[in-house]
Amino acid sequence: MPEIENPHADDPVFALHEGGKMAVSLTVPLHGPDELSMAYTPGVARVCEAIADDPSLADDYTWVPNTVAVVTDGTAVLGLGDIGPRAAMPVMEGKAVLFKQFGGIDAVPLCLDTTDVDEIIETVVRLAPSFGGINLEDISAPRCFEIEERLKQQLDIPVFHDDQHGTAVVVLAALQNALRLTDRLIETSRVVVSGAGAAGVAVTRILLAVGLRDVAVLDRRGVLHSSRVDLNDSKRALAADTADLTGRTGSLADAMAEADVFIGLSGGTVPEQVVATMADDAIIFGLANPTPEVLPEVAHRHARVVATGRSDFANQINNVLAFPGIFRGAFDCRATAITEGMKLAAANALAAIVADEATEGLIIPSPFDPRVAPTVAAAVAEAARRDGVARR
Amino acid sequence: MPEIENPHADDPVFALHEGGKMAVSLTVPLHGPDELSMAYTPGVARVCEAIADDPSLADDYTWVPNTVAVVTDGTAVLGLGDIGPRAAMPVMEGKAVLFKQFGGIDAVPLCLDTTDVDEIIETVVRLAPSFGGINLEDISAPRCFEIEERLKQQLDIPVFHDDQHGTAVVVLAALQNALRLTDRLIETSRVVVSGAGAAGVAVTRILLAVGLRDVAVLDRRGVLHSSRVDLNDSKRALAADTADLTGRTGSLADAMAEADVFIGLSGGTVPEQVVATMADDAIIFGLANPTPEVLPEVAHRHARVVATGRSDFANQINNVLAFPGIFRGAFDCRATAITEGMKLAAANALAAIVADEATEGLIIPSPFDPRVAPTVAAAVAEAARRDGVARR
Repeated sequence: MPEIENPHADDPVFALHEGGKMAVSLTVPLHGPDELSMAYTPGVARVCEAIADDPSLADDYTWVPNTVAVVTDGTAVLGLGDIGPRAAMPVMEGKAVLFKQFGGIDAVPLCLDTTDVDEIIETVVRLAPSFGGINLEDISAPRCFEIEERLKQQLDIPVFHDDQHGTAVVVLAALQNALRLTDRLIETSRVVVSGAGAAGVAVTRILLAVGLRDVAVLDRRGVLHSSRVDLNDSKRALAADTADLTGRTGSLADAMAEADVFIGLSGGTVPEQVVATMADDAIIFGLANPTPEVLPEVAHRHARVVATGRSDFANQINNVLAFPGIFRGAFDCRATAITEGMKLAAANALAAIVADEATEGLIIPSPFDPRVAPTVAAAVAEAARRDGVARR
Repeated sequence: MPEIENPHADDPVFALHEGGKMAVSLTVPLHGPDELSMAYTPGVARVCEAIADDPSLADDYTWVPNTVAVVTDGTAVLGLGDIGPRAAMPVMEGKAVLFKQFGGIDAVPLCLDTTDVDEIIETVVRLAPSFGGINLEDISAPRCFEIEERLKQQLDIPVFHDDQHGTAVVVLAALQNALRLTDRLIETSRVVVSGAGAAGVAVTRILLAVGLRDVAVLDRRGVLHSSRVDLNDSKRALAADTADLTGRTGSLADAMAEADVFIGLSGGTVPEQVVATMADDAIIFGLANPTPEVLPEVAHRHARVVATGRSDFANQINNVLAFPGIFRGAFDCRATAITEGMKLAAANALAAIVADEATEGLIIPSPFDPRVAPTVAAAVAEAARRDGVARR
């Protein structure tokens, strides 16, 4: 048959991806019969027997306590949507290499051939003896909320949906510095969150947890409030804790007037005339990738602090600032869960790294700042001990 | 609390196992923003989209096609029995490092928290998009037969229960050279297989496939034959293809009288007076670990060719001679299954490596003979193409 030209031959991204981005490696020597008889039969049997007698020894003599499963069903991959488990693999491999590079954690990408909530949960539960933690990834809302909640109830290892909580931690960290720079307090600020998916829900929840009172969350039909009849359970619960308390309703334009902070987690574009109605010294986080809800050049005309999800602008809100350090900290103290206190500690630690030098162009460290993961990890482990979930 | 002394502190095997035996590693650079934007967002999105459009590209741009899941439920771990998934992990990690060291294959140990046949099958099916092959390990008989059979039907990637087929391939290879050394043909030899579990069944089946006619398979109650009322389905089927054809019944002692070949896959001990009744120039494979069914010093008094499962005697029957090369060959040609022809090709290739130099003390290569995996892999890939299961 004729050779078909590879349409990706000249794309350096495809060249980089050839053969995948990760591998398994040995941490023990295996060059001769003696080493074989220690790493495998007959020697290994002694280690198995010891763990059978005392299961806690698995923490000492297997790779499990440093290992995380990166689990997806491929239903909400980046901004690409439901592309299925096979096409999701490059992202999950990418996540795994970030876990290793930034957190020293061995991560295994698992793309599941089911989108059924019960099946995903039971599959992860059955796999749990093989992993020290579970990182859920790119699972569509609102299914992701139930999956994470039920897994947390059933498992005694950390379960973390990064699209929710990783984003929430980094947004909170950046917002803390932005509020301080603009002389605001969270308690008296007015915030608009555009997007009521995984990230929108989690960002809003963490901001409420640190004292935010006036927040409107919007989906594409407008502000979430309880008079709307089109809300699912997670949106209805969020409405009750947000706009219902302030009586806000209406459109994005209604919500944005005089708002102090805009956090975009939805895609779409906010018209400049709407942006212009925000309060003085506004804060705009347009986090959609690749196109922020408010382009930086537009945002800077109307706001004092601007952040995006992109590496080519200042103030990149990137989850890699959070998840490697959070899992590193959880694993270091052998935490049985990731608590709200651990997430807040991560956000505070992340904000503190640049707090003394913070400017409008530097409200969050770079992902390549070597202080990030160790600082976050230490704070997370300390919070785990405080919250009583650390096993050492 | 008082420090508890670690009872394993002086054991070099435990020292070797500290922190486990394997890790994940990166195969791409990730030192700055440009590399991050290629290996992860936004660049990775292009690769995901390409795979969504053409799923076969997952073979080129992910680690999947070189990756095997080593799956167990911990019910039949080595000779230790049902020690559960957590205690099984050191063996599965060991298997994974052997896959890497000898086959260049990335293997992920998955110890499942269920022993239900249907649940194991559905779990593996859901995981299948993440792996290029499935290696079942240390799952008790007869459950292992149904699990493997149904997974082979449902999946279009290689599924291989190593305790069955790895053992069968290496035994066949060793036996071929042993028969030639003692001037026997398989068709006219009389063989006793002690053990009707995973290995006993698979060894018997592969020997029948290459022409063996007179074989008695025994469980701990004696020869399997259809008049017995205590046989499960797999044993009943095996009886119909073995002793039923020759009319053999009775005890191990009955079966051993004048037998040419004894293959022990059961544990237990064969009394020397029974061994003494075998034919002249007998062949004895006592493969139980750590204690062969016939100790080599006893076997040598009554047999011409002796093999064990141990590395400290000549002729070690070790599965690592087979599975790395078999999966390497299957992956190299992107086989959709591992056929009987591929297993026979593996056995023939393995036997041929030492055929010209074969002696009573050398009927099978050493696991560290560098020719083994490449030779087996090439033969397996060739057989896959012959059998029409190769995708390239």
